[in-house]
Amino acid sequence: MQARQLSIIGVGFLGASVGLAAKRRGLFSRVLGVDTCPDHLHEAMARGAIDQAGNAADATLATSDVLVVCTPVDTIVEQVRTLGPRLSPGACVTDVGSTKARIVHELNTSAPNVAYVGAHPLAGSEAGGPARADAELFAGRCVILTPTPITPAKTVAAVEAFWQALGARTLHLTPEEHDNALATTSHVPHLVAAALAGTLPSAWRDLVSTGFRDTTRVAAGSPALWTPIFQHNREPVLAALADYLRRLSEFHDALAQHDAPRLAHLLQHGKQVRDALGR
Amino acid sequence: MQARQLSIIGVGFLGASVGLAAKRRGLFSRVLGVDTCPDHLHEAMARGAIDQAGNAADATLATSDVLVVCTPVDTIVEQVRTLGPRLSPGACVTDVGSTKARIVHELNTSAPNVAYVGAHPLAGSEAGGPARADAELFAGRCVILTPTPITPAKTVAAVEAFWQALGARTLHLTPEEHDNALATTSHVPHLVAAALAGTLPSAWRDLVSTGFRDTTRVAAGSPALWTPIFQHNREPVLAALADYLRRLSEFHDALAQHDAPRLAHLLQHGKQVRDALGR
Repeated sequence: MQARQLSIIGVGFLGASVGLAAKRRGLFSRVLGVDTCPDHLHEAMARGAIDQAGNAADATLATSDVLVVCTPVDTIVEQVRTLGPRLSPGACVTDVGSTKARIVHELNTSAPNVAYVGAHPLAGSEAGGPARADAELFAGRCVILTPTPITPAKTVAAVEAFWQALGARTLHLTPEEHDNALATTSHVPHLVAAALAGTLPSAWRDLVSTGFRDTTRVAAGSPALWTPIFQHNREPVLAALADYLRRLSEFHDALAQHDAPRLAHLLQHGKQVRDALGR
Repeated sequence: MQARQLSIIGVGFLGASVGLAAKRRGLFSRVLGVDTCPDHLHEAMARGAIDQAGNAADATLATSDVLVVCTPVDTIVEQVRTLGPRLSPGACVTDVGSTKARIVHELNTSAPNVAYVGAHPLAGSEAGGPARADAELFAGRCVILTPTPITPAKTVAAVEAFWQALGARTLHLTPEEHDNALATTSHVPHLVAAALAGTLPSAWRDLVSTGFRDTTRVAAGSPALWTPIFQHNREPVLAALADYLRRLSEFHDALAQHDAPRLAHLLQHGKQVRDALGR
């Protein structure tokens, strides 16, 4: 993959990690970073995540071989639709958005000729900013790809090769399968953590141990990133939240009804699921 | 504190950590461990957390200067009531139970002459077993003490000195204040985590990232330890759970009603609280 150009639109935590991972592996001869935030560009340059900082009007974007959009989910469609048609034939486009159905279907409709495959690396993002970017963020991690029946096979192969070259394992799901699963595995946990954090009076901050810290950790994520995720994935999140509330009401009822064996059984089920995930 | 004896009833994760912390600091000339589980006693001896393994009938228990009960909350009262009256005047008794009101008031009634002060070290316990015990577990950590109006001042001073000698910061609360606060900071988070873990179908295990792992981590705790905690602290937990469900319904309603500014505001509030706790 020598003498090729990678362009990264949005060099926050994930975008800068893509740059660092690509550079460490020597996958591209040039990595261009684009961001509306000058601090991000400066930090990404300082970290060595990108070779060159540009803006969306930059002519060198057109010579990208791979373009990765790492902006909030509500801006990905616009970025791909604007930048994709300027690329050469043979270039491919992917993203890191935490939702897929709306993005993929809007692009299928409005930019069917852009060689795009939706992607979602299952890597935490609450760290925030290029300062914490990690060249090994994707190593061994799962990246979900969401090609559709109209996605050309060679586009799928090119995008898959890109993510695998960064060290990731790839997994193919439909955009809807992705969004249903992530509602349960990521989006509802975020709501749960944020609601739980909100119950803590400041007077009890000293009475918090590792359990509360762990359970609420993701609530530190950026509302600017998460609000559009919930808007995009509204129906699956509401369904997964209803499922969660049913489970929680079982715990409530067992406790309210003094049913200790039932409560122990419910706790044991939660433990089994959690133990199966490992530490 | 030389030429003195510490006895630890229950040498699991917390009990063995008490032993390791006391030994590293040279606080006692002898540390006796008692447990109904032979593996725990063996492991605690192997780790150097105790000098001698015994059982509850052991005559040497009577020569304890400090006796710490580290058994599940539903057995603490019985242990203190049985062992406390066998100690010499001047000896003191404490515990590590995650609930306090029921334990303290039952002991005030049934064993008013035992020199007992309830304690709760805010240190994670889901690790399980003496194998993971840590001599620095209490260093800089908060240990809540719950003396009552009938607790003699010299008993409070002796128990406080013991926990501070292990490196802990101590904080005095009434048993009820403790239980109300811990319902929010520890017990409801455990229910939330267990219920959330229970929503994950095994087919989606590979689609889990650090967020789900963090949010559900405490669900790995032992149901045998946690079921009696919920039974002891039933009313405060039900009240804190109702508060949590009110908060969560605000998130639900904002999402269901397409109210993005409201959702962003709620997420921002959760983030502010979590950020104030630090990593």
